[in-house]
Amino acid sequence: MRIEHAMLADLACGAAFLGSGGGGDPYYSLLLAEAAIKRCGHFEMIPLSALADDALVAPCGWIGAPTVSVEKLPNGQEPVAGLRRLEALMGRRIDAVFPMEIGGGNGLAPLIAAAEMGIPIVDCDGMGRAFPQSQMAIFNIRGVSACPAVLTAACGALTVIETQDNHQHERMARALSVALGGIAHMVEYPLSGAQAKAFAIPGSISAAIATGAAIREARSARQDPFEALAEALRATGLYPHCLTLFDGKIVDLQRETRGGFSIGRVEIEGFGGQGRMEVEFQNENLIARLNGQVKAVVPDLITIMDRETADSITTERLKYGQRVKVIAAAAPAVLREPVALKVVGPQAFGLGVDFTPVELLNKKEVA
Amino acid sequence: MRIEHAMLADLACGAAFLGSGGGGDPYYSLLLAEAAIKRCGHFEMIPLSALADDALVAPCGWIGAPTVSVEKLPNGQEPVAGLRRLEALMGRRIDAVFPMEIGGGNGLAPLIAAAEMGIPIVDCDGMGRAFPQSQMAIFNIRGVSACPAVLTAACGALTVIETQDNHQHERMARALSVALGGIAHMVEYPLSGAQAKAFAIPGSISAAIATGAAIREARSARQDPFEALAEALRATGLYPHCLTLFDGKIVDLQRETRGGFSIGRVEIEGFGGQGRMEVEFQNENLIARLNGQVKAVVPDLITIMDRETADSITTERLKYGQRVKVIAAAAPAVLREPVALKVVGPQAFGLGVDFTPVELLNKKEVA
Repeated sequence: MRIEHAMLADLACGAAFLGSGGGGDPYYSLLLAEAAIKRCGHFEMIPLSALADDALVAPCGWIGAPTVSVEKLPNGQEPVAGLRRLEALMGRRIDAVFPMEIGGGNGLAPLIAAAEMGIPIVDCDGMGRAFPQSQMAIFNIRGVSACPAVLTAACGALTVIETQDNHQHERMARALSVALGGIAHMVEYPLSGAQAKAFAIPGSISAAIATGAAIREARSARQDPFEALAEALRATGLYPHCLTLFDGKIVDLQRETRGGFSIGRVEIEGFGGQGRMEVEFQNENLIARLNGQVKAVVPDLITIMDRETADSITTERLKYGQRVKVIAAAAPAVLREPVALKVVGPQAFGLGVDFTPVELLNKKEVA
Repeated sequence: MRIEHAMLADLACGAAFLGSGGGGDPYYSLLLAEAAIKRCGHFEMIPLSALADDALVAPCGWIGAPTVSVEKLPNGQEPVAGLRRLEALMGRRIDAVFPMEIGGGNGLAPLIAAAEMGIPIVDCDGMGRAFPQSQMAIFNIRGVSACPAVLTAACGALTVIETQDNHQHERMARALSVALGGIAHMVEYPLSGAQAKAFAIPGSISAAIATGAAIREARSARQDPFEALAEALRATGLYPHCLTLFDGKIVDLQRETRGGFSIGRVEIEGFGGQGRMEVEFQNENLIARLNGQVKAVVPDLITIMDRETADSITTERLKYGQRVKVIAAAAPAVLREPVALKVVGPQAFGLGVDFTPVELLNKKEVA
């Protein structure tokens, strides 16, 4: 499958939604992808099934606080420098790349590197959304080592990380991203084709494109973009439920950049006297409570969107006074398994609640 | 020259003094060196002049807060793992190693790695004392790159750092040491033999041994160990002045482990009614003030010693109530050059004073 210029904006729109508030605003990645596609004509995307079992596949993306990513621009060479070093470490060429997380700018970033390397991108990702920490990738949940990993930064610094402990890897990479100014590019979890086929979230790039296209088409046909979004998500098979949790205005916002993350909470007052919704976030939106009652919780997706345009608002773009809808979607099924919830469920974030699927928390609202 | 078992305690004693309070208490390094020498018989030490111009020489040592080093033990494989990786990166064998800093445990640590690698240790170091940050090495002052550098930790994690900016290298290594539990081993500033001969502080290991031996001999002859220390230091040619700044009891101590350093200040009340001496430290003692007046300042050495035994007390071992002498020594001449003072002088530590040699600050006391 070819990703043409016209599809990039749809991908950015869909990835922004799937980011659940994180993964970085895709605007810069979109600009870079549009510039790259002018040089190379199109990006080549292959399905997971096209990978040879012994292929070498490299997930990659940016690590750091999204609040930094909107102020500190990349030098543009970080992804290729990291991928080339991984090739040297593995003693062979990389056959294909894909996004570590489909959410936000990280859903687009690997396209550019793939085009520069002359290799295809695989239609999959490692999280099915965005998560704030590296070890929240499905590959860690399935027991794959994150290393060797290569971290590159705008200043030209390059770091190779080798450890058997994927949590330790995250701590090291996070500390480095802070020392490097708050953001860096990482190539990690080098996989065989067989591992990628067994573990990666399949079809998530095309799911993001389809989701973005549905919103765009609804807007131009003056239909409800939120309905189109929900329908498109269900059609992907990955995100079987989608619903509007709340409709209101942002009346309070706390956000700080701490420990390499954007951490905070936002409070939204309903337009119809339904009370207040509070959303807590660590890069990504983690939990949404309506008047104190949990309405959606990680790993299910929670995305705050402009109530008129249906633009997804990443956590670093939230502002007092924005009029928004809070949309939730069921996470891909693999993220709801008990083994996954230990790593990406509410307790992994220190939230004092058990995971309950969003469709059960909102029984009345779900058709 | 052979370093025999009997010389290790002298080296530890001398290195503890030259550490200026830092470099880590040499006790564990001494135990490890004694265990290693039982296996290998002796350590082989060569003078700088014996290095071929095209030799590959690797300074190494531990990075982190000394407060952590006394609680978190190494696994013992960190130095060799780092040196072996540097060999792989450079595509050749390392011909010799030496301490990045002669001060404290770091003055002994490379002996063990050298013995395990079957290579000699060079009689020199990179600081002529101990300093808290990597870029304070004379090699950075002379424009040599710190990278590639290899950082290894007790958990088995290994990191390769590559950056052209030696300050950035320090920030990255420091952040990693914190993420790895507060301490890690680093191989950095890989040098040619010609660079080592041109830039390293020559003879500092044998200077430490001679200093330690002088203190030991004075103790057993029931002579004044502080006089013996001063005489031995002057005889090395590296440390031309040494004097006792103060004699008293520790009456106040503030110390915290912050940003990968042990930071604080200690206050000592004089026995003879001379008032109070305050010493500020960041891993190493940086400045000593007597009733507010500067009596010694970095890069000159300031070491707090037990007033009875003349044991050097590293900053992480300072305790309320210790009866101590504060000893200062002139730093090696290369550290007092204007180009060096920019990197290791008072202003590099944010101290609001200019550097004045300790022998000028204490004119009356110096013979």
